[in-house]
Amino acid sequence: MPVGTAGTVKGVTPEEVLESGAQIILGNTFHLYLRPGTGVINKFGGLHNFIGWDGPILTDSGGYQVFSLAKLRKINSNGVIFQSPIDGSEHIFTPEGVIEIQEIIGSDIIVCLDECIPYPADYEYTKDSTDMTIQWAYRSKKVYSGTECGLFGVVQGGFYKELREYCAGELIKIGFDGYAIGGVSVGEPKEMMYTVVDQIAPVLPWDKPRYLMGVGHPDDIIEGVARGIDMFDCVVPTRHGRRGYLYTRHGHIIIKNACYKDDESPVEDGCTCYTCSKYSRAYLRHLFMSGEILGLRLNTIHNLHYFGRFMKDIRDAITDGKLSQLREEFYNIRKEGAQCL
Amino acid sequence: MPVGTAGTVKGVTPEEVLESGAQIILGNTFHLYLRPGTGVINKFGGLHNFIGWDGPILTDSGGYQVFSLAKLRKINSNGVIFQSPIDGSEHIFTPEGVIEIQEIIGSDIIVCLDECIPYPADYEYTKDSTDMTIQWAYRSKKVYSGTECGLFGVVQGGFYKELREYCAGELIKIGFDGYAIGGVSVGEPKEMMYTVVDQIAPVLPWDKPRYLMGVGHPDDIIEGVARGIDMFDCVVPTRHGRRGYLYTRHGHIIIKNACYKDDESPVEDGCTCYTCSKYSRAYLRHLFMSGEILGLRLNTIHNLHYFGRFMKDIRDAITDGKLSQLREEFYNIRKEGAQCL
Repeated sequence: MPVGTAGTVKGVTPEEVLESGAQIILGNTFHLYLRPGTGVINKFGGLHNFIGWDGPILTDSGGYQVFSLAKLRKINSNGVIFQSPIDGSEHIFTPEGVIEIQEIIGSDIIVCLDECIPYPADYEYTKDSTDMTIQWAYRSKKVYSGTECGLFGVVQGGFYKELREYCAGELIKIGFDGYAIGGVSVGEPKEMMYTVVDQIAPVLPWDKPRYLMGVGHPDDIIEGVARGIDMFDCVVPTRHGRRGYLYTRHGHIIIKNACYKDDESPVEDGCTCYTCSKYSRAYLRHLFMSGEILGLRLNTIHNLHYFGRFMKDIRDAITDGKLSQLREEFYNIRKEGAQCL
Repeated sequence: MPVGTAGTVKGVTPEEVLESGAQIILGNTFHLYLRPGTGVINKFGGLHNFIGWDGPILTDSGGYQVFSLAKLRKINSNGVIFQSPIDGSEHIFTPEGVIEIQEIIGSDIIVCLDECIPYPADYEYTKDSTDMTIQWAYRSKKVYSGTECGLFGVVQGGFYKELREYCAGELIKIGFDGYAIGGVSVGEPKEMMYTVVDQIAPVLPWDKPRYLMGVGHPDDIIEGVARGIDMFDCVVPTRHGRRGYLYTRHGHIIIKNACYKDDESPVEDGCTCYTCSKYSRAYLRHLFMSGEILGLRLNTIHNLHYFGRFMKDIRDAITDGKLSQLREEFYNIRKEGAQCL
């Protein structure tokens, strides 16, 4: 899922998102609640209409942003009090409240409020927090009225196997339409993330989608899928695009590098995206060096297309029973390298 | 002509420029010479190919930018020595050199080097400078080899009627494919610009295009056309778009204003641009307030479309012999106002 934080996948139109092969976008409840606010979104009959996107939207619960972006906060079993980073005003997120906000947004997939535990965190803190997340999941399910959308619970438990399994087990008892794995990609070594997925994936019901939150890079995606993950979201295609970090099968290229100064080839040979169909690396480098906003957009289009194609390749490989082969090829092709000397 | 300073009309693709109704874009020789440089452009066989624009390109001579943007300079009858604002390196523009640069760029319309006289400037300075511009025009014509492109001279002469007429007369003797009027829009009162056009337009040959450089706002355009001007270039459609200043028949709107917070209407009723076809003022305001780059682009698309339609209306009115009527309607409709209270 490309990330459309504030009601736009940064730099591109809904049509360009669709052309990249993306089938669903993510919106951030925290950002949308603060701006434009539920009043405006409600007047437009939901986010789809407001932003001109007809496909599915998943909104997160806002929990992660409250803990990472908001300036002050109090947290207790009722919910979280935080200060808006925009104007300093005070707000409260409760499990019930964020379900209501996401229902006003008109999300197709709603996510329960959780506490995203920082890394590292000790066992006691993690245990108490995980209990609270389970309680919040219970309260969320209770007020959730959706029949046209799905509700996902978030498995927390930090980096403690028994707490992860405990949390997953409790959420399964409550019963959700899908299960998100939260509290990874919070600064821990990459192997620890893979370990969490290894531990949790087998516990989750096989007939419900599993969603690894905030992940990731292409290698994280292939490793996640190999461990049973179905859904991902990450800002890297868009954010890295804006920073001139472009993905190819052979690895990334950093477009500002001088070696691309008069390079007539596209970002990636054979790529069918608008950017690669029409423009050279030299032109993209020129736009980047000149600070031109068209460059941000063209880079984003390519990166979204890279990830869209990558996910399609993965789906096709699964259908054909060739996921292991794809995974092996993925690493072999990357060994060749894409970057100039 | 939308302005594509550094090889891109800021924020939009060539396709979006075309859709706005624009038939030609302007590139800045000064910017393109410094970055990406003639070496890169030459390798691509010209700017059209480098930036993916198939339509005509006019490049200015770089003179205006040398005098307004470069850090240090010496000027004598041979040319101008200036320092790059990018890296401080020293460069020289001569009349012959800028013709060569524009030929490498592959411009369809090439403009002679001139000195853009600041406002105010005394008679002696203006006289000497005008003589130099005429000499430069002569040297430009001499080295110009183009058969596939056109060469425009630039009428200078400050705000002295006799110097303007003198300059125009000398340029006509040399003989150009079109005549630009430079040295306006340099800080003088608007009436003085109209006066210069009133003085010069009747002197210029009626069968050659006249181009009012760096102009302008919609009222400047209708007044310029009424006085016999055929071509304009200005950054206002793009720059004002990025600043949230949106043009409509009824005048401009400032999209950040609170009155648009939940306004479901498009920027302009009846406008057929992509932005107005799909998005509300409320969404554009939200993008602007959130600092989203998609907003810069959607605003730019609308403004380019406004100017493209305005020029088409003017051409149609001229064909139908109804320019005076269009001019009257233009002011009457604007009196109604577009801005919220």
